[in-house]
Amino acid sequence: MSRPSALARAVTLLLLTVAAAPPASAQDTASAGPLTLQSQGSFFIGGREVQSDTLSTLPAYAPAGTITVDQMYVHYEIPIAAGNRPRLTLIHGCCLTGKTWETTPDGRMGWDEYFLRQGYPVYVVDQSWRGRSAGSVAAINAVKLGKAPLDQLPTVFSAAHEGAWTIFRFGPEYPKVYDGMRYPLGAQAEFWKQMVPDWSNAVPTPNPTVPALSELAQRLRGTVLISHSQSGIYPFQTAALSTQGIAGIIAIEPGACPAPTDDLTPYKGLPILVLWGDYVDLSPRWAPRLKNCRAFVAAVNANANGAAAQGAGAKAEMIVLPEIGIHGNSHMLMQDNNSLQIAALLVTWIERHVGTLP
Amino acid sequence: MSRPSALARAVTLLLLTVAAAPPASAQDTASAGPLTLQSQGSFFIGGREVQSDTLSTLPAYAPAGTITVDQMYVHYEIPIAAGNRPRLTLIHGCCLTGKTWETTPDGRMGWDEYFLRQGYPVYVVDQSWRGRSAGSVAAINAVKLGKAPLDQLPTVFSAAHEGAWTIFRFGPEYPKVYDGMRYPLGAQAEFWKQMVPDWSNAVPTPNPTVPALSELAQRLRGTVLISHSQSGIYPFQTAALSTQGIAGIIAIEPGACPAPTDDLTPYKGLPILVLWGDYVDLSPRWAPRLKNCRAFVAAVNANANGAAAQGAGAKAEMIVLPEIGIHGNSHMLMQDNNSLQIAALLVTWIERHVGTLP
Repeated sequence: MSRPSALARAVTLLLLTVAAAPPASAQDTASAGPLTLQSQGSFFIGGREVQSDTLSTLPAYAPAGTITVDQMYVHYEIPIAAGNRPRLTLIHGCCLTGKTWETTPDGRMGWDEYFLRQGYPVYVVDQSWRGRSAGSVAAINAVKLGKAPLDQLPTVFSAAHEGAWTIFRFGPEYPKVYDGMRYPLGAQAEFWKQMVPDWSNAVPTPNPTVPALSELAQRLRGTVLISHSQSGIYPFQTAALSTQGIAGIIAIEPGACPAPTDDLTPYKGLPILVLWGDYVDLSPRWAPRLKNCRAFVAAVNANANGAAAQGAGAKAEMIVLPEIGIHGNSHMLMQDNNSLQIAALLVTWIERHVGTLP
Repeated sequence: MSRPSALARAVTLLLLTVAAAPPASAQDTASAGPLTLQSQGSFFIGGREVQSDTLSTLPAYAPAGTITVDQMYVHYEIPIAAGNRPRLTLIHGCCLTGKTWETTPDGRMGWDEYFLRQGYPVYVVDQSWRGRSAGSVAAINAVKLGKAPLDQLPTVFSAAHEGAWTIFRFGPEYPKVYDGMRYPLGAQAEFWKQMVPDWSNAVPTPNPTVPALSELAQRLRGTVLISHSQSGIYPFQTAALSTQGIAGIIAIEPGACPAPTDDLTPYKGLPILVLWGDYVDLSPRWAPRLKNCRAFVAAVNANANGAAAQGAGAKAEMIVLPEIGIHGNSHMLMQDNNSLQIAALLVTWIERHVGTLP
């Protein structure tokens, strides 16, 4: 049982968090004051060339030729005086893009800017085949042109508002709302605009985002991979490819953690935080995932320390926010009305468990 | 004939441009020094709710429900000391996203940052149904589920490298290169990663980007709409909806200008610049478009001033870069190796023809 020490850490964190939480006025971008960047820009990681003869059905664009897919778009901002703080890589979840981490639907500061203002270089990605990271429509045109059967149409979906409502735990079912739930539902129309079609079932396994994250980590020489939901497993898969360049993993409500029976060697000694919001026990979708992640965290720590010393020096931990007295968080923690309080908690965790780069 | 006065203006501009052009070292982001922002963030404009029963073919996501489409993603950065300079809205072209204006494929500063450093607030959009602006895949699933015939698959295409080579005027045909052509082809693999599928034939006419730009202009109360290629016609269509909030139009190699026989009232007195690169006469695709734009510019000025005073006080102009001594520009002016020289030319034009907001 690693619960006692995890709980002790959580209580410490809570105290730190309350101290570090920004005043209410800082929740508003407009009042945050000027921000000085050392540099900013964007680039792609990964990508492979694909030949096709069904790229187009229009006369103005040739059907045959080469396109590039699987690359991952990365936008970065580096604050002045970043020192040797680790770089933070923000990886969005299902049906969303890097917009997840920017200005909230009700116009408050996003985590991207909050972390910058705390002195951290911030890298925001769009998963492969999502947002500014190109996919291919060749399979659609192949069917349209009669060159492939109907069942070769790609498996793509949009999450409807009604279904997403439950998945994001705004309430038990649309349009019911959990008591005290912190998502700014007054701006829900703006949130729905963030949702985009999901092509992840039409791409190779593991998702090309994973090798791209590995290449990014090696390029950055020290990044905390911060995932959310669908992308929750990606940093773990990335570490399994290579731990080079990975300074830590923060999995926010991951769709999956590795199984406790997996090879846990890649996670030995790696600072890992799995973070959960509220109402998880009420969700048939999320409750088992939380349970599996708890087993994973326990297994990693047991693996790292041996059965006897279990807990001492453990590097993985799990925080369920209501267990440390923070109530009302939905699945979209980074946009809830206490989003910067949660971000401050993460900064504190990073300072204590990841520290600075050598 | 408005050519003499246009030419005189062009020569003046050239002189101004040479003076305003940044030194070679400033072409490199790394050497540009810190950048202080007053604020930054992102939001969506527009969007409509759509009901569908073919959103998904997966058990984990319901087929029926509501999604939001047609919205336009906008990312902005406001420099300190922007004063009352007009806001610049950057609108990318076909098969591309807002990435167009960011770091170039060979790692130089993008126009987004250059304009910021000149004191202009910068708004970068992703067209509707592109990048971070969601489209719908319901039509694909309708066919996949047998609820719609094959011919109702959306008309979507990817531009192949080989075809894009000619369209972007890197050379007459892939892989030939025009003499002196300025696109950084050594980094072409990075450029191809910027290209995404184009859904513009699957959306209403005018493109939902157009009413979104109109709403954006009214919200910004004074923006220069800077378009490229496919989006070239959008600012003109936007002005036809309402000129409110539009401080000027810069159309960079527009896919189309309005016809000289169109109602030109919306453009009367509006500062308009149509800008072209090199090798246009060699391109069967672009040569007639340039010719049509020249006729449009002449007609706008004739309309504005009357036949007798034609030229004097005219607000529309066209610059073909080789005609003012700048040679070698491809269709992707904002990424060519003299990209910041072109950007400086635009800043000079904006200062002289748009000025500051009241």
